[in-house]
Amino acid sequence: MKKIKEYIEKNKERFIEELFELIRIPSISSEVEHKPDMYKCAEKWKTILLNAGADKAEVFETEGNPVTYGEKIIDPALPTVLVYGHMDVMPVDPVELWNTKPFEPVIKDGKIWARGADDDKGQCFMHAKAFEYMVQTGNLPCNVKFMIEGEEEIGSSSLPKFCQEHKDLLKADIILVSDTGMIAPDVPSITSGLRGLAYWQVEVTGPCRDLHSGLFGGAVANPINVLAKMIAAMVDDKGHITIPGFYDDVLEVSAAERAKMAEAPFDLEAYKKAICVKELFGEEGYTTNERTGIRPTFDVCGIWGGYTGEGSKTVLPSKAFAKISCRLVPNQDHKKIATLFKQYFESIAPGYVKVEVTPLHGGPAYVCPIDLPAYKAAEKAYADVYGKNPVPFRSGGSIPIIAAFEEILGIKSILMGFGLESDAIHSPNENFPLEQFFNGITTIPLFYKYFAEKK
Amino acid sequence: MKKIKEYIEKNKERFIEELFELIRIPSISSEVEHKPDMYKCAEKWKTILLNAGADKAEVFETEGNPVTYGEKIIDPALPTVLVYGHMDVMPVDPVELWNTKPFEPVIKDGKIWARGADDDKGQCFMHAKAFEYMVQTGNLPCNVKFMIEGEEEIGSSSLPKFCQEHKDLLKADIILVSDTGMIAPDVPSITSGLRGLAYWQVEVTGPCRDLHSGLFGGAVANPINVLAKMIAAMVDDKGHITIPGFYDDVLEVSAAERAKMAEAPFDLEAYKKAICVKELFGEEGYTTNERTGIRPTFDVCGIWGGYTGEGSKTVLPSKAFAKISCRLVPNQDHKKIATLFKQYFESIAPGYVKVEVTPLHGGPAYVCPIDLPAYKAAEKAYADVYGKNPVPFRSGGSIPIIAAFEEILGIKSILMGFGLESDAIHSPNENFPLEQFFNGITTIPLFYKYFAEKK
Repeated sequence: MKKIKEYIEKNKERFIEELFELIRIPSISSEVEHKPDMYKCAEKWKTILLNAGADKAEVFETEGNPVTYGEKIIDPALPTVLVYGHMDVMPVDPVELWNTKPFEPVIKDGKIWARGADDDKGQCFMHAKAFEYMVQTGNLPCNVKFMIEGEEEIGSSSLPKFCQEHKDLLKADIILVSDTGMIAPDVPSITSGLRGLAYWQVEVTGPCRDLHSGLFGGAVANPINVLAKMIAAMVDDKGHITIPGFYDDVLEVSAAERAKMAEAPFDLEAYKKAICVKELFGEEGYTTNERTGIRPTFDVCGIWGGYTGEGSKTVLPSKAFAKISCRLVPNQDHKKIATLFKQYFESIAPGYVKVEVTPLHGGPAYVCPIDLPAYKAAEKAYADVYGKNPVPFRSGGSIPIIAAFEEILGIKSILMGFGLESDAIHSPNENFPLEQFFNGITTIPLFYKYFAEKK
Repeated sequence: MKKIKEYIEKNKERFIEELFELIRIPSISSEVEHKPDMYKCAEKWKTILLNAGADKAEVFETEGNPVTYGEKIIDPALPTVLVYGHMDVMPVDPVELWNTKPFEPVIKDGKIWARGADDDKGQCFMHAKAFEYMVQTGNLPCNVKFMIEGEEEIGSSSLPKFCQEHKDLLKADIILVSDTGMIAPDVPSITSGLRGLAYWQVEVTGPCRDLHSGLFGGAVANPINVLAKMIAAMVDDKGHITIPGFYDDVLEVSAAERAKMAEAPFDLEAYKKAICVKELFGEEGYTTNERTGIRPTFDVCGIWGGYTGEGSKTVLPSKAFAKISCRLVPNQDHKKIATLFKQYFESIAPGYVKVEVTPLHGGPAYVCPIDLPAYKAAEKAYADVYGKNPVPFRSGGSIPIIAAFEEILGIKSILMGFGLESDAIHSPNENFPLEQFFNGITTIPLFYKYFAEKK
């Protein structure tokens, strides 16, 4: 570890300047006018990998944005680590809330401030510098491949096909990802699970036109009232989702693992205070972190119908709509859940309305067993750097491509995140502490060391 | 009656063109950018009344939109009829559902198509033309006053004060209003009752900012889910409203009157077919017409919250909103109901959200005894024109100012409506059959004849 830190110290200004060059490219994948920047970024990553020591690097076209691939194969008999990251970033609005320019990175208060400083340029770049260290100092214990895509923020829609078409190229023993967080700067954690997702839009139709709520109110079912009743019926007072069969495939987490999860430091009062609520509500029998980590949910993300403008309009509307999403846990199948929801929603619809359920998108959950050798290697690496074992953390969020990697390539991922909640990813004033950046570069080579030892 | 019909026949093109000029003014009271149109319309009505034969007509300023007053006093010893109507119209959205332009009236299939064609320009204009007929042909049997306001669709909030301040000016024996409907073109009816109204906007707040539905979903109560539960709780499965004390002041209608109401021709299958529903839903123990005529309701007129745009966004929103209205019956007090609702809504709000209830507007119900001399005069007039007595009909709609007239001016109103359900008032493609328009102009002078005879 001493040698890594010395290398970092000697090269840190260059590291930062190289990262800044990457950050300055406004690679916003959801905005069509930045398409040229996606290509610029892909080429930049190719250069980054070759300069770091890759034997070859290539920019692949896809149906969407390009993917940059790089590799250094030292011995086919050795294990292979595949590093996955994304070069695209979130949009920056509302721009007026930024204190600095989103694509002009600056260092202030020990942090890099810019869009992508954490998610995912800062975090992904740690892997490039760790790789450079290992290659330049002759400390590379196994083969390394890099796959950097450009559509993660918009659903990674081209990547499954890319993986399918390049199965041989991408053959590896483990995938390393830094696109998640740690509990706190002094509380290391590894994300050992991600939730899946199923998302629908529903439409409830009563009368075929908006009606006068005086002339018809009381005699004709109001689709908003009906939609409210149907949504209310989906979750009981104990926070349990009532869709028949919904929980059938849920892997119950062992008491032992729940106890380990409970060891993670968590300040309930601070949590409530940060979001300004007096009380929390969720599934009975589970703690706050269990409710987001190991239990599925039912959330209405959007609802609309009738008159929503200024003042009052006495209308009994024809239609009411909702956007509904369920977060899923292993081993729930998002396609099966979509069918169960549709059937149930249609079955509880009373005869005085018609309902339509349109699936929008979905993806399975992901879990990394904490006794996996690669997980153990990562655990040791964090322990060396932080002086304590990382806590296994089940994230409430979803990164659907991680489950797709397992499905298509048959490879598990280790989510070695170094982000912090204060990094404000997806928000204005995104930032990444230099301490996190350098700790990441320090930890990653130690993972490789322990991983190669075990295999 | 023959003479009236001749007069109409001779002047009908002019009548229609004059009405079209009135309709073309987009006098939408709920939209601030149409304020100038309200003034334009008031001046237009002044001209209409003077041209019809009023001795004087004036546009009065109020705290809100102007009121047009006109009169012809032929003999203070004679009875006085006060005609009330409104010049303002409902907004036109969703504009894309209109087959013609809302403020460019056309005649098609024997109907005038435009916003305001029925409600209330077409219907009010019938009174101006009936008045013109009586004045021009020397058939005016009593004094006439006109009061046309510009805020009915937004609650007539300036009119009570206007009435209070002009009690002497508005002195009359009866108020005539055409702003309601008939059961069918060949089934005349007089609206003998109106429902009251109470309207609120509610806001439910969970966390103080929108949250990531992955990181927080399941652990934090979603205000949309909560609002749905609260709305669902307001009405039970038997269609009974659960607000404590809600029904306390409801005047139960006698079995005899319910039997008389039941005599009105009503085709349930046609009713359902016209609004394309397979089944109806309402308060158990009451027929469709009783549910709209003599029972109160709870309707959500609008609901919104979270992400409602295209595609999917995984958000756990900070807020959810609804616009809620209750139709009331005699003798429910709308201010008392507002208090009961607010208290109940706040009491059922769980501790993990904050709720805010903002009353928007309200007004009491109204009933006209069917043995009132003025009612009998109207009954006779309809019988002359239609060959059968009109059915006394308890309307589901509200015109809160009618009850206010009784309270402030001490004058009852006769609701001689000529609208039809197919007129689609408040909806896209509002229309008014020429037959109804001309029958109205025919019936109204006959009312005056019989009313003046009786007094």
